[in-house]
Amino acid sequence: MKDMQEEKRRIVILAEGFFGDLEAKTASGLIMYKPEEVVAIIDSTKADRSVEDILGFGGDTPIVATLSDSLKYRPSALLIGIAPRGGKLPSEWRGVIKQALENGLDVINGLHDLLNEDPEFSALAASRGATIHDLREASKYNTVAIGDPSLIEATVVLTVGTDCKTGKKVTSIELAKEARKHGFNPHFVATGQSGIAIFGEGVPVDSIIGDFMSGAIEAFLIEKSKTYDLLCVEGQGTIVHPGYSGVTLALIHGSLPDAMILCHYPGREIVKSYEVKIPPLKEMIQLYEDLTRPIKPCKVIGVSLNTQELGDEEARAEIEKVEKETGLPAIDPVRFGCDKLMKAL
Amino acid sequence: MKDMQEEKRRIVILAEGFFGDLEAKTASGLIMYKPEEVVAIIDSTKADRSVEDILGFGGDTPIVATLSDSLKYRPSALLIGIAPRGGKLPSEWRGVIKQALENGLDVINGLHDLLNEDPEFSALAASRGATIHDLREASKYNTVAIGDPSLIEATVVLTVGTDCKTGKKVTSIELAKEARKHGFNPHFVATGQSGIAIFGEGVPVDSIIGDFMSGAIEAFLIEKSKTYDLLCVEGQGTIVHPGYSGVTLALIHGSLPDAMILCHYPGREIVKSYEVKIPPLKEMIQLYEDLTRPIKPCKVIGVSLNTQELGDEEARAEIEKVEKETGLPAIDPVRFGCDKLMKAL
Repeated sequence: MKDMQEEKRRIVILAEGFFGDLEAKTASGLIMYKPEEVVAIIDSTKADRSVEDILGFGGDTPIVATLSDSLKYRPSALLIGIAPRGGKLPSEWRGVIKQALENGLDVINGLHDLLNEDPEFSALAASRGATIHDLREASKYNTVAIGDPSLIEATVVLTVGTDCKTGKKVTSIELAKEARKHGFNPHFVATGQSGIAIFGEGVPVDSIIGDFMSGAIEAFLIEKSKTYDLLCVEGQGTIVHPGYSGVTLALIHGSLPDAMILCHYPGREIVKSYEVKIPPLKEMIQLYEDLTRPIKPCKVIGVSLNTQELGDEEARAEIEKVEKETGLPAIDPVRFGCDKLMKAL
Repeated sequence: MKDMQEEKRRIVILAEGFFGDLEAKTASGLIMYKPEEVVAIIDSTKADRSVEDILGFGGDTPIVATLSDSLKYRPSALLIGIAPRGGKLPSEWRGVIKQALENGLDVINGLHDLLNEDPEFSALAASRGATIHDLREASKYNTVAIGDPSLIEATVVLTVGTDCKTGKKVTSIELAKEARKHGFNPHFVATGQSGIAIFGEGVPVDSIIGDFMSGAIEAFLIEKSKTYDLLCVEGQGTIVHPGYSGVTLALIHGSLPDAMILCHYPGREIVKSYEVKIPPLKEMIQLYEDLTRPIKPCKVIGVSLNTQELGDEEARAEIEKVEKETGLPAIDPVRFGCDKLMKAL
């Protein structure tokens, strides 16, 4: 990933059909945190609109219909900015990826499907001097967790959720930003493909084999704790997710947090794509705390709400309701900042 | 794995230095359940003793000092019968594996290190017409769990544990045997390398990447439920394990059990290789039940104790104590059978 960080990237983001949706959260995340790196968005269904119009931020970054239309903005890389369920490459994207490589663009890929393992893509990349960055390539992780909290010499705050896509990544990023103002030397630790795409480093926990997930995050935190005093670790999934709960728990036991923040999307009652009813927040908090107790007891110190679909008034009411319900400080980190969480910490 | 099942295997087991220990549970498991397939054991430290003498079962199967010494028993395959922490191949085993392949023996390997990916081994196997069976090869698993319990058309019983190596595999196997006597058409579902080595099929959950662990076991159970009416699923690790808890939970949410059996090794107070104190049995039961509730509520219906180190009297006392403590039926499946558990079921 070094070359991704050394010089400024000029990225065109593939978000066809989904720009602005939660399914394209890699796209919106990159525009939020690295707007200077984004030269264009590909989404033919929104090519006449502005990024600002769709996201509420992002200014006049152009939305174009095709990769060809984006070339005039001189991109250096194509980022696959949509995360389809299961991380498979939809066959209709092969064309645009080939076209990018043919034009010498690097490809930044967060899918489970590794493009470097695709003979056509890898041959094309080699012949055009382009690099494929498979963010979920995880074969190097091969150690079991040590499980000794004293090896991580920093305070660790982990976000946990009531579901996927509740704001865990954004909360962890915003908390790190806020902590800097409070005199910490903090670091955001990405654990998913979106965060890794944005910041160029992290641990793709959901792509590591079962026995080594905890060990991977633990080793990363031990290393980072030599430089930083506060590690804001992005959580994954939810402990009540039929498909991803194993990843969620591996992150909890691998990061051995000192504090957890529960992330929730108000109004969401069912785990996305499943029939699972999300338990009440107090039960979720209890369950997360129960799971840490035998190894390293840890409290949920606050609740982070993603109120993007609510008006200001409604958002404040929701926050108040959740504070009453849980007895914990609640925030929306994007809307109202993380100050309250820093105090709880 | 088909060829492993089609004709009777003649296996020599590598258990150097560890035969009879929990670290060599693949070896003792194979001797317990497929004694007719084992022609010799390699453990130079016990070459003058009998299998029966060390395990308490297994008769006069010879223990030899080297692979060369085993050849007179005409083995068709070498099974790596020790599971080192992390599943890495110790360099000192390379010699015996090469020697086996040179003699045309297949190699059955349950390590995380895949021997087919080792150029020296794979070339040697190809040149001698030998096959390397990497039991943990898991690249084919690539689907996220559906999470719909109605798709599994059989009763599912999952063993869970207070630690690794507490008897989850043996309990599930014995329960399936007992269930047959009660008129069920049961099937043991192996989820670890030992069980897969013994029965030639299963899902190596701990070797599958995070997002696909639950989906892998779910798909396997959906398929098996078309043939069997009771699936006895081997659990893995423990929910309080710093390194493996993610695998444990993925199995719980992927198998969506109708009943769980808690397996415990009496006297063990600390998670093996860690400083983690094992919570009281009642707390463990509560935690496992709490984790199933949001997706598909499931009770722990009994406790299985591994009393192999206790005398008959002590074992009975321990069972009584645990029954009093938990209010659940307790057994040692090897010593006293699974009848009580079948009744609870």
